[in-house]
Amino acid sequence: MIEVIAGIDIGGTKIAIALEKLNGERIAVRRLPTGVENGPYSIIETVLRTIDEMLAETGARLVSIGICCPSPLDVENGLIMSPSNLMDWENFPIVKLFQDRFGVAVVLENDANAAALGEHVYGAGSGYRNIVYVTVSTGIGGGIIINGEIYHGVNTAAGEMGHTIVQPDGTRCNCGSVGCLETICSGTHIARRTRERLAFGEPSLINDLAESGEVTAEMIVEAVRQKDRVAVEIWEETCHFLAIGIGNIITLLAPEAVVIGGGIASAGGLLFMPLRRLVPQFVSMLPAEKINIMPAELGSESGVCGALVLAKRAYSKTYQYAA
Amino acid sequence: MIEVIAGIDIGGTKIAIALEKLNGERIAVRRLPTGVENGPYSIIETVLRTIDEMLAETGARLVSIGICCPSPLDVENGLIMSPSNLMDWENFPIVKLFQDRFGVAVVLENDANAAALGEHVYGAGSGYRNIVYVTVSTGIGGGIIINGEIYHGVNTAAGEMGHTIVQPDGTRCNCGSVGCLETICSGTHIARRTRERLAFGEPSLINDLAESGEVTAEMIVEAVRQKDRVAVEIWEETCHFLAIGIGNIITLLAPEAVVIGGGIASAGGLLFMPLRRLVPQFVSMLPAEKINIMPAELGSESGVCGALVLAKRAYSKTYQYAA
Repeated sequence: MIEVIAGIDIGGTKIAIALEKLNGERIAVRRLPTGVENGPYSIIETVLRTIDEMLAETGARLVSIGICCPSPLDVENGLIMSPSNLMDWENFPIVKLFQDRFGVAVVLENDANAAALGEHVYGAGSGYRNIVYVTVSTGIGGGIIINGEIYHGVNTAAGEMGHTIVQPDGTRCNCGSVGCLETICSGTHIARRTRERLAFGEPSLINDLAESGEVTAEMIVEAVRQKDRVAVEIWEETCHFLAIGIGNIITLLAPEAVVIGGGIASAGGLLFMPLRRLVPQFVSMLPAEKINIMPAELGSESGVCGALVLAKRAYSKTYQYAA
Repeated sequence: MIEVIAGIDIGGTKIAIALEKLNGERIAVRRLPTGVENGPYSIIETVLRTIDEMLAETGARLVSIGICCPSPLDVENGLIMSPSNLMDWENFPIVKLFQDRFGVAVVLENDANAAALGEHVYGAGSGYRNIVYVTVSTGIGGGIIINGEIYHGVNTAAGEMGHTIVQPDGTRCNCGSVGCLETICSGTHIARRTRERLAFGEPSLINDLAESGEVTAEMIVEAVRQKDRVAVEIWEETCHFLAIGIGNIITLLAPEAVVIGGGIASAGGLLFMPLRRLVPQFVSMLPAEKINIMPAELGSESGVCGALVLAKRAYSKTYQYAA
């Protein structure tokens, strides 16, 4: 019977499940809507049942599981905490439910850390020992890989680059601080800053793109491509502060690479060209050629890839101890 | 014959040399003026001769050496680079000179990293796995200890917290960036900000303390103790931005402790009380009780202590490989 590991990425809207042989061959993948309205027990029951089906279809035996979820988690005790993007999952014993069902090692990790590990092993960060992964999306988060391992820090709180302060006299953040990187450069705040500017009645293509709907960061990126003045100015400010935030990470950690993923990173050269020009201006302690800023390569797969790495490592450890 | 390791801290003004038995007992310490005007070869010859004397006096046999110096260094090739606080030490092969003379393992490390390691093993950071050491002095620097080891990063450049940007619309730094932590909170810049303010003719005790001499950070600390209004306002701003800088370190790395040393840290409660109040306001991702800000404990000994740790570890490794 072939042995497989499972990687599971439980997001606020989608769940991805992948089975992989120990040689790295992926033998089955499933994607489900999360359906948060159904509540955690029903959702997890669906995942458990889906894995059962996948195992039955492939005739495989499960040996370990890696799961990633949005923060906050209690990784040591295998709990999803509150407040989470997954509503009502307060102190939810997710690890125990999987252990009880399959009787194998189960590792829980937050989604940004898992994505960092995924990019480190399979993606843009492969071949490096120390990388920082930054996801620029609705919010800004990330993960730090040191010596090939996720660096957790106290309370698994490391890597919260979205809440480093880059504009102390800036905008108040949801987190309570003022001037967090997120208050300028996250998708949510790119859209907010644009709306605030358009409120003054300046003509802009964004008004047409949004029509009756809401302004989104995607529209702004589209308007930048079309050289809309408001969009270009908002985008320049975004790149400027993102470069400061990333520069501060590099000044502190001097990683071999900073890998940037998330929805905003899909702007591609529009983001990476200015970042590669600006970040060296904000980092004086490393020569520009040692500053390595790369787009993530795994897209929405990074989390499930990281979960698979965790599952594989957990199995190697169990196996090692047993042998 | 007893076996000893040597720790050497070569600073811009002073050199400290310590011999320690492998059980940790310190059997000899010497302090010399650096006398930078004599040039590197003469200085190192003095250090080599002093060690010879110390070994002769104690009847000990040297088994390994740890050296710390100001940046920039090429740690891998054992070179002091330029520009350094040690003038004319360009590409100076310090490690080779010690190896040639004593025929033992020699480890080179920058002074801030060595101080971080010293505080980690012997000082305020002992008992923790992950700490950040920050030295607030003429400049601001530091070192990062992860899993009990110095974290170097690319080009040994990690831990340059003095050049993280906390006020993007602030003052230009020597390093070329704008608004580095150092441009507000280093001793040099605390004095500059004070001088700029006094230039407007505001009455202040600092004028009396400085008399005909130059305003120093020490005078400002003294004036704060005496509740001088200008000094208190300068100090409050200093603590505010230092708290943002330290907060950003904590938000990124979630270390178990941040240990603060250097001349400015000798202000004691005047610095640590506001920092402990302010930093939690700038770190939303960790509860206040997990934020641990401590004064360094080894003072000017931190570098030589770190150099001893490096020597001991180098010897253990050699011994391990030989056995």
